[in-house]
Amino acid sequence: MNEALKEAQKAYDRDEVPVGAVIVCNRTIVARAHNLTETLHDVTAHAEMQAFTAASGYLGGKYLDECSLYVTLEPCVMCAGAAFWTHLGALFFAATDEKRGYRLVGKPLLHPKTQIVAGILADESRQLLQAFFKRKRI
Amino acid sequence: MNEALKEAQKAYDRDEVPVGAVIVCNRTIVARAHNLTETLHDVTAHAEMQAFTAASGYLGGKYLDECSLYVTLEPCVMCAGAAFWTHLGALFFAATDEKRGYRLVGKPLLHPKTQIVAGILADESRQLLQAFFKRKRI
Repeated sequence: MNEALKEAQKAYDRDEVPVGAVIVCNRTIVARAHNLTETLHDVTAHAEMQAFTAASGYLGGKYLDECSLYVTLEPCVMCAGAAFWTHLGALFFAATDEKRGYRLVGKPLLHPKTQIVAGILADESRQLLQAFFKRKRI
Repeated sequence: MNEALKEAQKAYDRDEVPVGAVIVCNRTIVARAHNLTETLHDVTAHAEMQAFTAASGYLGGKYLDECSLYVTLEPCVMCAGAAFWTHLGALFFAATDEKRGYRLVGKPLLHPKTQIVAGILADESRQLLQAFFKRKRI
Protein backbone atom coordinates (compact mmCIF):
# COMPACT_ATOMS: atom_id res chain seq x y z
CA MET A 1 0.00 0.00 0.00
CA ASN A 2 2.99 2.26 0.46
CA GLU A 3 3.60 2.04 -3.29
CA ALA A 4 -0.04 2.90 -3.99
CA LEU A 5 0.32 5.89 -1.68
CA LYS A 6 3.36 7.03 -3.68
CA GLU A 7 1.16 6.91 -6.78
CA ALA A 8 -1.52 8.94 -4.99
CA GLN A 9 1.13 11.54 -4.16
CA LYS A 10 1.99 11.76 -7.88
CA ALA A 11 -1.69 12.48 -8.60
CA TYR A 12 -1.68 15.15 -5.88
CA ASP A 13 1.37 16.75 -7.46
CA ARG A 14 -0.48 16.90 -10.80
CA ASP A 15 -3.54 18.50 -9.21
CA GLU A 16 -5.55 15.33 -9.64
CA VAL A 17 -7.74 13.82 -6.91
CA PRO A 18 -5.00 11.84 -5.15
CA VAL A 19 -5.79 8.16 -5.58
CA GLY A 20 -3.11 5.62 -6.41
CA ALA A 21 -3.15 1.92 -7.21
CA VAL A 22 -0.74 -0.92 -7.76
CA ILE A 23 -1.38 -4.50 -8.77
CA VAL A 24 0.79 -7.28 -7.39
CA CYS A 25 1.12 -10.72 -8.91
CA ASN A 26 3.56 -13.34 -7.62
CA ARG A 27 5.14 -10.79 -5.30
CA THR A 28 5.89 -8.51 -8.24
CA ILE A 29 4.28 -5.18 -9.01
CA VAL A 30 2.80 -5.61 -12.48
CA ALA A 31 1.01 -2.26 -12.69
CA ARG A 32 1.20 1.19 -11.14
CA ALA A 33 -1.25 3.98 -11.79
CA HIS A 34 -2.77 7.12 -10.40
CA ASN A 35 -5.91 9.02 -11.14
CA LEU A 36 -5.70 11.03 -14.37
CA THR A 37 -9.30 12.09 -14.95
CA GLU A 38 -8.50 15.80 -15.21
CA THR A 39 -5.36 15.45 -17.30
CA LEU A 40 -7.08 13.14 -19.78
CA HIS A 41 -10.57 14.73 -19.56
CA ASP A 42 -11.75 11.17 -19.05
CA VAL A 43 -13.85 9.98 -16.13
CA THR A 44 -12.84 6.40 -16.84
CA ALA A 45 -9.17 7.19 -16.06
CA HIS A 46 -9.40 6.17 -12.42
CA ALA A 47 -6.24 4.66 -10.94
CA GLU A 48 -7.81 1.22 -10.71
CA MET A 49 -9.02 1.17 -14.33
CA GLN A 50 -5.61 2.07 -15.64
CA ALA A 51 -4.01 -0.51 -13.35
CA PHE A 52 -6.34 -3.25 -14.62
CA THR A 53 -5.53 -2.40 -18.22
CA ALA A 54 -1.79 -2.22 -17.53
CA ALA A 55 -1.71 -5.47 -15.54
CA SER A 56 -3.69 -7.34 -18.19
CA GLY A 57 -1.38 -5.99 -20.86
CA TYR A 58 1.70 -7.01 -18.87
CA LEU A 59 0.39 -10.48 -18.09
CA GLY A 60 -1.10 -11.04 -21.53
CA GLY A 61 -4.44 -12.24 -20.20
CA LYS A 62 -7.75 -10.81 -19.14
CA TYR A 63 -7.98 -12.34 -15.70
CA LEU A 64 -6.30 -11.17 -12.53
CA ASP A 65 -7.42 -13.99 -10.24
CA GLU A 66 -3.84 -14.48 -9.03
CA CYS A 67 -3.35 -10.78 -8.40
CA SER A 68 -4.00 -8.28 -5.65
CA LEU A 69 -5.05 -4.68 -6.17
CA TYR A 70 -3.85 -2.14 -3.62
CA VAL A 71 -5.69 1.16 -3.88
CA THR A 72 -5.66 4.16 -1.56
CA LEU A 73 -9.43 4.78 -1.74
CA GLU A 74 -12.39 2.44 -1.76
CA PRO A 75 -13.27 1.77 -5.42
CA CYS A 76 -16.38 3.29 -7.01
CA VAL A 77 -19.09 1.28 -8.78
CA MET A 78 -17.30 1.50 -12.14
CA CYS A 79 -14.04 0.18 -10.72
CA ALA A 80 -15.79 -2.52 -8.69
CA GLY A 81 -17.58 -3.59 -11.87
CA ALA A 82 -14.25 -3.76 -13.69
CA ALA A 83 -12.74 -5.74 -10.79
CA PHE A 84 -15.60 -8.19 -11.15
CA TRP A 85 -14.75 -8.82 -14.79
CA THR A 86 -11.06 -9.37 -13.95
CA HIS A 87 -11.96 -12.03 -11.35
CA LEU A 88 -9.60 -10.11 -9.08
CA GLY A 89 -7.93 -12.29 -6.45
CA ALA A 90 -7.78 -9.75 -3.65
CA LEU A 91 -8.72 -6.12 -3.09
CA PHE A 92 -6.87 -4.09 -0.47
CA PHE A 93 -8.09 -0.56 -0.05
CA ALA A 94 -7.06 2.17 2.37
CA ALA A 95 -9.59 4.95 3.01
CA THR A 96 -13.34 4.46 2.84
CA ASP A 97 -15.25 6.52 0.27
CA GLU A 98 -18.31 7.72 2.15
CA LYS A 99 -19.93 9.23 -0.96
CA ARG A 100 -19.08 7.01 -3.91
CA GLY A 101 -17.69 3.79 -2.48
CA TYR A 102 -19.02 0.65 -4.16
CA ARG A 103 -20.18 -0.74 -0.83
CA LEU A 104 -22.84 1.97 -0.56
CA VAL A 105 -24.82 0.16 -3.27
CA GLY A 106 -25.47 -2.52 -0.68
CA LYS A 107 -25.25 -5.39 -3.16
CA PRO A 108 -22.24 -7.59 -3.94
CA LEU A 109 -20.57 -6.04 -6.97
CA LEU A 110 -17.20 -7.78 -6.80
CA HIS A 111 -16.49 -11.32 -7.94
CA PRO A 112 -17.47 -13.81 -5.21
CA LYS A 113 -13.90 -15.11 -5.06
CA THR A 114 -12.32 -11.69 -4.46
CA GLN A 115 -10.94 -11.31 -0.94
CA ILE A 116 -11.38 -7.86 0.57
CA VAL A 117 -9.21 -6.11 3.15
CA ALA A 118 -9.97 -2.50 4.14
CA GLY A 119 -8.16 0.07 6.22
CA ILE A 120 -4.42 -0.34 5.52
CA LEU A 121 -2.80 3.13 5.61
CA ALA A 122 -6.30 4.59 5.72
CA ASP A 123 -5.23 7.64 7.75
CA GLU A 124 -2.39 8.56 5.40
CA SER A 125 -4.57 8.10 2.32
CA ARG A 126 -7.42 10.13 3.80
CA GLN A 127 -5.08 12.92 4.89
CA LEU A 128 -3.75 13.25 1.36
CA LEU A 129 -7.31 13.50 0.00
CA GLN A 130 -8.26 16.04 2.66
CA ALA A 131 -5.18 18.13 1.87
CA PHE A 132 -6.14 18.09 -1.81
CA PHE A 133 -9.70 19.27 -1.23
CA LYS A 134 -8.57 21.85 1.31
CA ARG A 135 -6.15 23.24 -1.30
CA LYS A 136 -8.99 23.32 -3.85
CA ARG A 137 -11.17 25.39 -1.53
CA ILE A 138 -8.56 28.08 -0.97
CA MET B 1 -28.96 2.48 -33.07
CA ASN B 2 -28.36 1.26 -36.61
CA GLU B 3 -24.86 2.69 -36.37
CA ALA B 4 -24.28 0.93 -33.05
CA LEU B 5 -25.45 -2.29 -34.66
CA LYS B 6 -22.89 -1.81 -37.44
CA GLU B 7 -20.24 -1.55 -34.73
CA ALA B 8 -21.54 -4.74 -33.12
CA GLN B 9 -21.21 -6.47 -36.49
CA LYS B 10 -17.55 -5.38 -36.61
CA ALA B 11 -17.02 -7.02 -33.21
CA TYR B 12 -18.71 -10.18 -34.50
CA ASP B 13 -16.41 -10.22 -37.50
CA ARG B 14 -13.39 -10.02 -35.13
CA ASP B 15 -14.69 -12.89 -33.00
CA GLU B 16 -15.52 -10.54 -30.15
CA VAL B 17 -18.80 -10.63 -28.22
CA PRO B 18 -20.82 -8.44 -30.60
CA VAL B 19 -21.68 -5.25 -28.76
CA GLY B 20 -21.43 -1.86 -30.42
CA ALA B 21 -21.88 1.70 -29.22
CA VAL B 22 -22.05 5.21 -30.59
CA ILE B 23 -22.31 8.53 -28.81
CA VAL B 24 -24.28 11.36 -30.37
CA CYS B 25 -23.94 14.99 -29.43
CA ASN B 26 -25.74 17.81 -31.25
CA ARG B 27 -26.94 15.35 -33.90
CA THR B 28 -23.36 14.35 -34.66
CA ILE B 29 -21.73 11.01 -33.90
CA VAL B 30 -18.75 11.90 -31.72
CA ALA B 31 -17.65 8.34 -30.91
CA ARG B 32 -17.98 4.84 -32.34
CA ALA B 33 -16.71 1.71 -30.67
CA HIS B 34 -17.17 -2.00 -30.38
CA ASN B 35 -16.19 -4.53 -27.80
CA LEU B 36 -12.46 -5.40 -27.92
CA THR B 37 -11.95 -7.35 -24.70
CA GLU B 38 -10.41 -10.39 -26.42
CA THR B 39 -8.25 -8.48 -28.87
CA LEU B 40 -6.83 -6.25 -26.13
CA HIS B 41 -6.90 -8.87 -23.33
CA ASP B 42 -8.65 -6.18 -21.34
CA VAL B 43 -11.99 -6.58 -19.60
CA THR B 44 -12.37 -2.81 -19.44
CA ALA B 45 -12.47 -2.57 -23.26
CA HIS B 46 -16.27 -2.73 -23.48
CA ALA B 47 -17.81 -0.75 -26.33
CA GLU B 48 -19.30 1.80 -23.94
CA MET B 49 -16.03 2.47 -22.09
CA GLN B 50 -14.15 3.11 -25.29
CA ALA B 51 -16.97 5.31 -26.53
CA PHE B 52 -16.91 7.40 -23.33
CA THR B 53 -13.16 7.89 -23.63
CA ALA B 54 -13.37 8.73 -27.33
CA ALA B 55 -16.27 11.16 -26.91
CA SER B 56 -14.60 12.95 -24.01
CA GLY B 57 -11.41 13.22 -26.03
CA TYR B 58 -13.30 14.56 -29.03
CA LEU B 59 -15.29 17.08 -27.01
CA GLY B 60 -12.38 18.06 -24.77
CA GLY B 61 -14.36 17.70 -21.55
CA LYS B 62 -15.22 15.04 -19.04
CA TYR B 63 -18.98 15.40 -19.08
CA LEU B 64 -21.43 14.02 -21.60
CA ASP B 65 -24.59 15.58 -20.23
CA GLU B 66 -25.53 16.84 -23.69
CA CYS B 67 -24.87 13.47 -25.30
CA SER B 68 -26.74 10.24 -25.92
CA LEU B 69 -25.19 6.79 -25.81
CA TYR B 70 -26.64 4.16 -28.14
CA VAL B 71 -25.51 0.65 -27.27
CA THR B 72 -26.74 -2.69 -28.57
CA LEU B 73 -26.76 -4.42 -25.16
CA GLU B 74 -27.79 -3.23 -21.72
CA PRO B 75 -24.64 -1.91 -20.00
CA CYS B 76 -22.98 -3.85 -17.19
CA VAL B 77 -22.25 -2.43 -13.73
CA MET B 78 -18.83 -1.11 -14.81
CA CYS B 79 -20.25 0.74 -17.81
CA ALA B 80 -23.21 2.06 -15.81
CA GLY B 81 -20.75 3.32 -13.20
CA ALA B 82 -18.76 5.05 -15.93
CA ALA B 83 -21.96 6.53 -17.38
CA PHE B 84 -22.72 7.94 -13.94
CA TRP B 85 -19.39 9.78 -13.86
CA THR B 86 -19.98 11.24 -17.34
CA HIS B 87 -23.39 12.64 -16.27
CA LEU B 88 -24.66 11.04 -19.46
CA GLY B 89 -27.66 12.83 -20.95
CA ALA B 90 -29.47 9.80 -22.35
CA LEU B 91 -28.93 6.07 -22.58
CA PHE B 92 -30.54 4.09 -25.38
CA PHE B 93 -29.93 0.38 -25.30
CA ALA B 94 -31.23 -2.41 -27.48
CA ALA B 95 -31.18 -5.93 -25.98
CA THR B 96 -31.56 -6.65 -22.28
CA ASP B 97 -28.66 -8.43 -20.56
CA GLU B 98 -30.36 -11.02 -18.38
CA LYS B 99 -27.12 -12.03 -16.66
CA ARG B 100 -24.98 -8.94 -16.26
CA GLY B 101 -27.21 -5.97 -16.96
CA TYR B 102 -26.79 -3.10 -14.52
CA ARG B 103 -30.49 -3.12 -13.70
CA LEU B 104 -30.13 -6.50 -11.99
CA VAL B 105 -28.36 -4.76 -9.10
CA GLY B 106 -31.73 -3.26 -8.26
CA LYS B 107 -30.30 0.09 -7.19
CA PRO B 108 -29.97 3.27 -9.27
CA LEU B 109 -26.44 3.23 -10.68
CA LEU B 110 -26.84 5.86 -13.40
CA HIS B 111 -26.83 9.61 -12.88
CA PRO B 112 -30.30 10.79 -11.80
CA LYS B 113 -30.49 13.08 -14.84
CA THR B 114 -29.80 10.31 -17.37
CA GLN B 115 -32.84 9.45 -19.47
CA ILE B 116 -33.20 5.76 -20.31
CA VAL B 117 -34.84 4.15 -23.33
CA ALA B 118 -34.67 0.38 -23.81
CA GLY B 119 -35.63 -1.94 -26.63
CA ILE B 120 -34.71 -0.17 -29.90
CA LEU B 121 -33.51 -2.83 -32.40
CA ALA B 122 -33.50 -5.30 -29.53
CA ASP B 123 -34.32 -8.29 -31.75
CA GLU B 124 -31.52 -7.56 -34.21
CA SER B 125 -28.99 -6.99 -31.44
CA ARG B 126 -30.02 -10.14 -29.60
CA GLN B 127 -29.91 -12.22 -32.80
CA LEU B 128 -26.34 -11.13 -33.44
CA LEU B 129 -25.35 -12.10 -29.89
CA GLN B 130 -27.13 -15.44 -30.21
CA ALA B 131 -25.40 -16.14 -33.53
CA PHE B 132 -22.04 -15.39 -31.89
CA PHE B 133 -22.57 -17.75 -28.96
CA LYS B 134 -24.00 -20.43 -31.24
CA ARG B 135 -20.85 -20.21 -33.39
CA LYS B 136 -18.72 -20.48 -30.24
CA ARG B 137 -20.45 -23.67 -29.19
CA ILE B 138 -19.82 -25.46 -32.50
